[in-house]
Amino acid sequence: MDKLRVTIWNEYFHETEDTPAKEYYPRGMHEHLKQALAAEDLEIRTATLEQDAEHGLTEDVLRWTDVLLWWGHCRHSWVRDDVAQRVAERVQQGMGFVPLHSAHQSKPFLRLMGTPCTLRWRNEEERCVIWNVSPNHPIARGVPLHFGLAHEEMYGEYFFIPEPEELLFLSWFEGGNVFRGGCTFTRGLGRIFYFHPGHETCPSYHNEHVLRIIGNAIRWAAPPEPREFRAGDEMERI
Amino acid sequence: MDKLRVTIWNEYFHETEDTPAKEYYPRGMHEHLKQALAAEDLEIRTATLEQDAEHGLTEDVLRWTDVLLWWGHCRHSWVRDDVAQRVAERVQQGMGFVPLHSAHQSKPFLRLMGTPCTLRWRNEEERCVIWNVSPNHPIARGVPLHFGLAHEEMYGEYFFIPEPEELLFLSWFEGGNVFRGGCTFTRGLGRIFYFHPGHETCPSYHNEHVLRIIGNAIRWAAPPEPREFRAGDEMERI
Amino acid sequence: MDKLRVTIWNEYFHETEDTPAKEYYPRGMHEHLKQALAAEDLEIRTATLEQDAEHGLTEDVLRWTDVLLWWGHCRHSWVRDDVAQRVAERVQQGMGFVPLHSAHQSKPFLRLMGTPCTLRWRNEEERCVIWNVSPNHPIARGVPLHFGLAHEEMYGEYFFIPEPEELLFLSWFEGGNVFRGGCTFTRGLGRIFYFHPGHETCPSYHNEHVLRIIGNAIRWAAPPEPREFRAGDEMERI
Amino acid sequence: MDKLRVTIWNEYFHETEDTPAKEYYPRGMHEHLKQALAAEDLEIRTATLEQDAEHGLTEDVLRWTDVLLWWGHCRHSWVRDDVAQRVAERVQQGMGFVPLHSAHQSKPFLRLMGTPCTLRWRNEEERCVIWNVSPNHPIARGVPLHFGLAHEEMYGEYFFIPEPEELLFLSWFEGGNVFRGGCTFTRGLGRIFYFHPGHETCPSYHNEHVLRIIGNAIRWAAPPEPREFRAGDEMERI
Repeated sequence: MDKLRVTIWNEYFHETEDTPAKEYYPRGMHEHLKQALAAEDLEIRTATLEQDAEHGLTEDVLRWTDVLLWWGHCRHSWVRDDVAQRVAERVQQGMGFVPLHSAHQSKPFLRLMGTPCTLRWRNEEERCVIWNVSPNHPIARGVPLHFGLAHEEMYGEYFFIPEPEELLFLSWFEGGNVFRGGCTFTRGLGRIFYFHPGHETCPSYHNEHVLRIIGNAIRWAAPPEPREFRAGDEMERI
Repeated sequence: MDKLRVTIWNEYFHETEDTPAKEYYPRGMHEHLKQALAAEDLEIRTATLEQDAEHGLTEDVLRWTDVLLWWGHCRHSWVRDDVAQRVAERVQQGMGFVPLHSAHQSKPFLRLMGTPCTLRWRNEEERCVIWNVSPNHPIARGVPLHFGLAHEEMYGEYFFIPEPEELLFLSWFEGGNVFRGGCTFTRGLGRIFYFHPGHETCPSYHNEHVLRIIGNAIRWAAPPEPREFRAGDEMERI
Repeated sequence: MDKLRVTIWNEYFHETEDTPAKEYYPRGMHEHLKQALAAEDLEIRTATLEQDAEHGLTEDVLRWTDVLLWWGHCRHSWVRDDVAQRVAERVQQGMGFVPLHSAHQSKPFLRLMGTPCTLRWRNEEERCVIWNVSPNHPIARGVPLHFGLAHEEMYGEYFFIPEPEELLFLSWFEGGNVFRGGCTFTRGLGRIFYFHPGHETCPSYHNEHVLRIIGNAIRWAAPPEPREFRAGDEMERI
Repeated sequence: MDKLRVTIWNEYFHETEDTPAKEYYPRGMHEHLKQALAAEDLEIRTATLEQDAEHGLTEDVLRWTDVLLWWGHCRHSWVRDDVAQRVAERVQQGMGFVPLHSAHQSKPFLRLMGTPCTLRWRNEEERCVIWNVSPNHPIARGVPLHFGLAHEEMYGEYFFIPEPEELLFLSWFEGGNVFRGGCTFTRGLGRIFYFHPGHETCPSYHNEHVLRIIGNAIRWAAPPEPREFRAGDEMERI
């Protein structure tokens, strides 16, 4: 079986500063996730914002990629519009897309959703319980019906997204908020899974369940077959 | 404009005992709701489990009814199977159906859902916050983005229902649980809105937002036009 | 009751040429629809591409508008990007949006969908049968289970849109094609109904069922209450 | 990798008579499908209505089964209610279910849907074109955007089902009808795919695309992991 080809994209800013992020992810979240998600059926590469003029997301890289993970937070505006559009179009053609945490405000996600994608937030690293409300879904494989994160940034409703196609995980925060924090969308041929954990000052990507969910999402979002999809050009009667 | 014809069905057991239910709803929840929901565009009647051999839900009553509210808890099994089936079929033909609180285990709801409809529960009357996650929906008209109930029975995930068509309200409980507590389903021509507040020992049907939601749901669930729907008998080519 | 405020936007090009469009719609589709949809509960205005520098869609007009109909075909690119963005944002804030026929390629619809929205087409004015597959939906009120159009442009699958939230009408074409030609989407607070009939050389906007569907869609897409929606700025614990 | 365990259930009546069914499927549809779907990752068994008092669907057989295919037509009423209920419950617990053709009226499907599941039909073996409207879905893997069946029974709208969760295939019939003929539902942990081709007097189960779709559906509907699902009994605070 051919391996699934995964690109992990990271803004890679916080981890270069003297912050908890650097402690949890000394070589960057992208390198951490690459190692934590390593498996026989995956070939994983990384790309970062300042790697080159195209943020490491050239035409060739995207053509190679089956599933793209995206972590960004405070430098969304640094991403070039043409690169964001290229990513969105590749998703429409079938590339899987897994925006993580603050990527709800990333340029590709905004273009694909068609809504502002704003949310409530509160950075007090409060307790979070994640509920699995679709236990038969491939992304929930091996995930318990609930699990806790001792500290995570509160992301809460109202989350200004289109109605998700599937709601897989609901998050509870001790401060009284709830969040549709794990949900799927289809855009053309591309499958999208948004998942909220991963604030840079919390060790969420060391949590086994969070990692399992992201790993499952990669397999779920991968296009079912290689194809150069052509949809609209037959005009003849059938 | 013709009035919408509403029937409020109640098991009417707890309120006859010496319990908080009797205090909050001295004439029964059905009479309380009838009064609290009174409006110019509604004609409201009530029916109860022991009213007659058909639980007040004769063919004539159901034919009259545009929208049926249902509150039941500990005597689901007392409802006759043929009456439950009659209700389910009338929903499929277009009658709106608003099962409240423990009606998630009522016979008509089970038949319409096709799943066990079990859930977690904990009766410690803990604090509940209800989040409005679909603020443009007619059922959310005039409802704030969140509101609290000082005491309500915890109903939580995993709620063993089909994927809701629309998720309108999410409930947070102080004990760490979340619940898809306000959601819609369509079954044939019938519109269904399940809403969880209303444990018999809590005054939830005195809360203005809860009442507004139920009132909105009645207008939303009402069939758009009177019709004797016939769907399947034309066999000719078009 | 306050009237619903409707703006009908039209490219208004074909009807100015010596074509069948001019015959069917001598004063333009916008004026035809304004007259055909006239009702006591509606206040209808029109706007056109070349009316002024902002295509008649100023901030004031959009703030006034509850529901915007949009007909465009061969001059999508003439619409200014900033005006298209203004329309999309107003939809997200709650304005209803009813793109008709070729508006599947209009700038606001593309921004709101996040997909290419291409489709198959064939302009042989073949026979079309429209099937009502959600007969209890408010947009289907008073519409038979099927009706025919003697001539309409074939629009067919694959229609490169996100999965619709509700599929209301399916179209059959004699040449062997089918089309998800009447479907709804939500984008933030805004409700969207796309409906395919209306090629400029066919008299579809003289068909009673087509007009009824558009009229129903206006009432369905109207925001349930006036509001300046603010979603995300409370950071306190609840 | 463990093999997926598939049970093909067949009414097995038409093929025993002197009809075209006997010609197309001399050893029965179940044996034909068993052979046509054979693959290294599948272990396939069969069961039939009159095989034994429980129609070959004992507790043990259902416990063994990952995915159940069901073909029935004129003897739905012969199926015991307790066996139908056993099947429905096993689906809710995670068994995949693929009702084929007239199984839209089978007892297990009716229990799982909660609607009458009636449809229009016309047995003139007219031409059918099947459109793939969700080309990225695993069930559509390797399936072209459209393919034809020279003769199939017309099944058409209005199909009295709940709104499907995913609409994968739309069928066009030369007589002017359309049909949501390939669609998915979730019921608890169980995944369901209904697919319409397969009238007993047509050779549809000899068509490569029909077979590929059924094969894909088996892999899609299989539960992601073996489990004895227990959902509701933790009452403690989290």
